Amino acid sequence: MNRGILLTISGPAGSGKGTVIAELMKMSDDFRYSVSATTRNPRPGEVDGVNYYFVTKEKFLSLIENEEMLEHTEYVGNYYGTPKAPVEKTLDEGKNLILEIETEGALNVKKMAPDSVAIMLLPPDGEVLRSRLVGRGTETPEVIEKRMEKAKKELNLLDHYDYVIINETGKIDVAAKKILEIVNSEKLRTSRNMDIKNNYFK
Amino acid sequence: MNRGILLTISGPAGSGKGTVIAELMKMSDDFRYSVSATTRNPRPGEVDGVNYYFVTKEKFLSLIENEEMLEHTEYVGNYYGTPKAPVEKTLDEGKNLILEIETEGALNVKKMAPDSVAIMLLPPDGEVLRSRLVGRGTETPEVIEKRMEKAKKELNLLDHYDYVIINETGKIDVAAKKILEIVNSEKLRTSRNMDIKNNYFK
Repeated sequence: MNRGILLTISGPAGSGKGTVIAELMKMSDDFRYSVSATTRNPRPGEVDGVNYYFVTKEKFLSLIENEEMLEHTEYVGNYYGTPKAPVEKTLDEGKNLILEIETEGALNVKKMAPDSVAIMLLPPDGEVLRSRLVGRGTETPEVIEKRMEKAKKELNLLDHYDYVIINETGKIDVAAKKILEIVNSEKLRTSRNMDIKNNYFK
Repeated sequence: MNRGILLTISGPAGSGKGTVIAELMKMSDDFRYSVSATTRNPRPGEVDGVNYYFVTKEKFLSLIENEEMLEHTEYVGNYYGTPKAPVEKTLDEGKNLILEIETEGALNVKKMAPDSVAIMLLPPDGEVLRSRLVGRGTETPEVIEKRMEKAKKELNLLDHYDYVIINETGKIDVAAKKILEIVNSEKLRTSRNMDIKNNYFK
């Protein structure tokens, strides 16, 4: 069986990451969504292994220590991260694994798993990005400015990504199909198919 | 306009290169077939600029000298090669250019044009390759053995290629569609889209 591909998908707030990923998972059964580990307490209704892997701080720190985390971050006193073992299991089963992740985390994954594929999703341009944030009607002008500043920093990291997809307004399916094409194409990379060379002339 | 992509397609005799490329060009109008330059004389019916660019030996040597050839080779006293200028023109017009080329030439193109995409097309395995060659009924056993030896050498160069496509028997359209997906996906590479970064926040 062909091994699946580890995909990190990043993009500023307003890029439509969540919607595009949901569309992609409707289009194909070959994708799985990564479950993070966290040291925070489960909220009512949250299920271990579904929403998160809930682990103790000691366990989390030992996973980091033993290089068993693909990436991790600390946020208001709790740790969040991606444990390697379930990722490997999913890839070995031939399923592609999606990590929806901040730029910093994506770059760390790329370091730990150089054969992962990093995709940046972007709204058509800065103005559309701003109008999407304003259109939500939920953020104050200060928050919107902060998000715009953050988007600029994220865009500066574009070189570290493998692919960039412009998520045109109203064309979620087009963006999802582009991810599918990237994955199909990545599966044909010679670096992922060196077994052909060894088994060709028996 | 987005610049086209330069594709080299190689594969052993019996891999079905020609048929797959013909199918690809039926599927999409975004591909052009590269015209080689040669110092040999035109045969009856051959048209300059269509079958070949017919040039003098002096002209050919000066093109090499000035690094205006992407690759070239000598065969029974005549030169054959790919001049850069028409390639650049086609790519600038947004069309993808296909070079059906021997492994050695493909590796030279990759050196001269690192942003080109090198694809190796292969029959499912060595036995199918042999049976396709035998099935043609036009080659002597000696020629078939020579072709098989050549195929082994070509396969050894697989690492230098970007992508490998297995051309399953009777599935020409699948192989052609894979090339199309590779090109669509390559167009989304961040390295081909750095203008986004510069124009995003105006």
